[in-house]
Amino acid sequence: MNELREKAKRAKELTTELGLKTTEEKNAALLSMAQQLVKEQSFILAENEKDQAAGRQNGLNDGLIDRLSLTEARIADMAEGLKQVAQLNDPIGEELEQFTRPNGLTIRKVRVPLGVIGMVYEARPNVTVDASSLCLKAGNAVLLRGSSSAIHSNKAIVAVLHRALEKTTIPTAAIQLIEDTSRETAAELFKLNEFVDVLIPRGGSGLIQTVVQNATIPVLETGVGNCHIYIDESANKEMALSIAVNAKTQRPSVCNAAETILVHQTWANKHLNELVAILNEKNVQIYSDALLKNMFPQFQLATESDWADEYLDYKVALKVVPTVDEAIRHISKYGTYHSEAIISETSENVEAFLNQVDAAAVYHNASTRFTDGFEFGFGAEIGISTQKLHARGPMGLEALTSTKFHVLGNGQIKK
Amino acid sequence: MNELREKAKRAKELTTELGLKTTEEKNAALLSMAQQLVKEQSFILAENEKDQAAGRQNGLNDGLIDRLSLTEARIADMAEGLKQVAQLNDPIGEELEQFTRPNGLTIRKVRVPLGVIGMVYEARPNVTVDASSLCLKAGNAVLLRGSSSAIHSNKAIVAVLHRALEKTTIPTAAIQLIEDTSRETAAELFKLNEFVDVLIPRGGSGLIQTVVQNATIPVLETGVGNCHIYIDESANKEMALSIAVNAKTQRPSVCNAAETILVHQTWANKHLNELVAILNEKNVQIYSDALLKNMFPQFQLATESDWADEYLDYKVALKVVPTVDEAIRHISKYGTYHSEAIISETSENVEAFLNQVDAAAVYHNASTRFTDGFEFGFGAEIGISTQKLHARGPMGLEALTSTKFHVLGNGQIKK
Repeated sequence: MNELREKAKRAKELTTELGLKTTEEKNAALLSMAQQLVKEQSFILAENEKDQAAGRQNGLNDGLIDRLSLTEARIADMAEGLKQVAQLNDPIGEELEQFTRPNGLTIRKVRVPLGVIGMVYEARPNVTVDASSLCLKAGNAVLLRGSSSAIHSNKAIVAVLHRALEKTTIPTAAIQLIEDTSRETAAELFKLNEFVDVLIPRGGSGLIQTVVQNATIPVLETGVGNCHIYIDESANKEMALSIAVNAKTQRPSVCNAAETILVHQTWANKHLNELVAILNEKNVQIYSDALLKNMFPQFQLATESDWADEYLDYKVALKVVPTVDEAIRHISKYGTYHSEAIISETSENVEAFLNQVDAAAVYHNASTRFTDGFEFGFGAEIGISTQKLHARGPMGLEALTSTKFHVLGNGQIKK
Repeated sequence: MNELREKAKRAKELTTELGLKTTEEKNAALLSMAQQLVKEQSFILAENEKDQAAGRQNGLNDGLIDRLSLTEARIADMAEGLKQVAQLNDPIGEELEQFTRPNGLTIRKVRVPLGVIGMVYEARPNVTVDASSLCLKAGNAVLLRGSSSAIHSNKAIVAVLHRALEKTTIPTAAIQLIEDTSRETAAELFKLNEFVDVLIPRGGSGLIQTVVQNATIPVLETGVGNCHIYIDESANKEMALSIAVNAKTQRPSVCNAAETILVHQTWANKHLNELVAILNEKNVQIYSDALLKNMFPQFQLATESDWADEYLDYKVALKVVPTVDEAIRHISKYGTYHSEAIISETSENVEAFLNQVDAAAVYHNASTRFTDGFEFGFGAEIGISTQKLHARGPMGLEALTSTKFHVLGNGQIKK
């Protein structure tokens, strides 16, 4: 039996035990993990340095090296995250419904863990800690499959977490790292229905599509966001400018940042110059169709990919539309079901937009940047679901649970 | 563009419109469908006769011919089912949560349709009507992919349903039959993520596994049930006998029927003869290990498949176990996460069983035959989910919905 199957089997065997751990036991483990991370930070930083050196040698760009890099401050953040998860309500055992049927059967619907969760992610070592903490709090075992470029960091972090768990009642195998980062092993993981209940990919669209296309295990699809801001005819000028700029530039690298701005013709006639000026000021490169580019020579000509893909950068696609319906049609064609906003003072158009645009979150007069577990008040999140099954939008602890019916009788048989 | 892609694209294009249909519009369509089915029953029966004749020619056994066959009474049942679905509460538009964040954003979580549902099923023409009615009530478009052996019946039923919809405001394309029943087209359907939101297979384990193994679209896995009745040391004799016999024989062909009876050693010493006698009386063939077979020569020797697979017949696997823990271990090894029961008067053992057995429904002192949408009070069901994501146990209308966040602001931007 190879490493993957062995660890997956071990995880599966643990599920009953983990599901019965008390809130106190789980919180004690989370706090122990927080403490141990800080205590062993120099070990983690030294191992992380190996990944950074290898990354530089392999020509990773500065952005990727930055994502990979750990510092004392970042380790302190991870420890803080663990403490916050300890403070979240424990979802396990919660009774969601209880009712008695005419035949006397009492039916209770209770929250239970999902079981074994396979996390598949890229070179962000903080995901190792974040995912482990949320999975543990929801009573699950987690199999971590990170990127080979972060393997030293991930091994070090998991070793430290294990030393933390050894001081508690939570078995170390609740958190296991798949050290073999080959593609073959990943492919095997995606089809390990025997032991794994759900896969959660976290990363770019390439990674997510690889998992969706190859998995036979159910997948919680997260996070590609080709988000739009639609500025309606009646939009308040100051509000529209402020939201468009915020959604695009407050943090361009994240999935809830805006990638396309759609502007109603009438509003554009009055205020487009100002919108363009303010985007220029923020160093945002604008991509548009030929008509608009004729008016603004500094624009780039948009290709199909400019409408369809995320920039995650100081770039934005800009389009003038004749009606709210045309804006909705554009979003329906190019959107990725993540976060979409309308800025408008016309309630009829707002209603149409909120009801007809298909997305996890639809906004009126606010920035798409709020689609986030903390901003919604759910606490830490495992990702943002852009699919319609199980969980949609920011996924907190509840998304890591399932339910079970307890049916209590006194001899009932079916007539 | 082939038939499948054309119909799937048409379904996808309809989703916004269907999601906005009122309860009255949807109910009017359901009642029109009920009426039209009865009105055109001789046409449906004549077409069904062609499937029956082909089935006999192809050597289908009596059970399969029976599943395939329609009668006036069965058509009346389908019409009755449609009327019942019309009476169910409309889940769409329901507000599940509403809260206001410190920054003034109001967040509403509302129920919305899933979108396009692909139903993949075997030769039961009633599924054509049942699935269509539930999908329609929950605001979804449905693509029906039935078996080639029921193709005449399915075409006739869908033609009749279309004539019913033409009298209403619901477009006929809300319900579409994929007439090409080739394997290639099924394989293409399983990967049509562009247009289809979820697949629901309904049928035997072969069909379900084919969908799970080949789909890239999320699957709602339904219904294989290798269900166990565990009779504990302290079980009331009469109750245990009554429940075991009911769970096995009240309707052996369904997924919530019992397939294995586990008996505690002490109870067995006292009452096993009686259990065997009563099963014999009901013509149930018993499969056991060699030890038990030595005591009861009329038993058959159980193979691995007797413990692992569904009989769906007057057959049962029987095993004596030393402890409740051993019963739980056996179920954990062979169960299919469907319905599992303990018969016991010892609360400690009941607690252990209910908490440790991993299944959609765990029973105390009742027959597993109650795992059913009607018995749980949910109304008609689209199937019984045995997976942990999205929906678990009997799936009614709510399982055919998703949610969406409406985020309402007055200019909020992220700091």
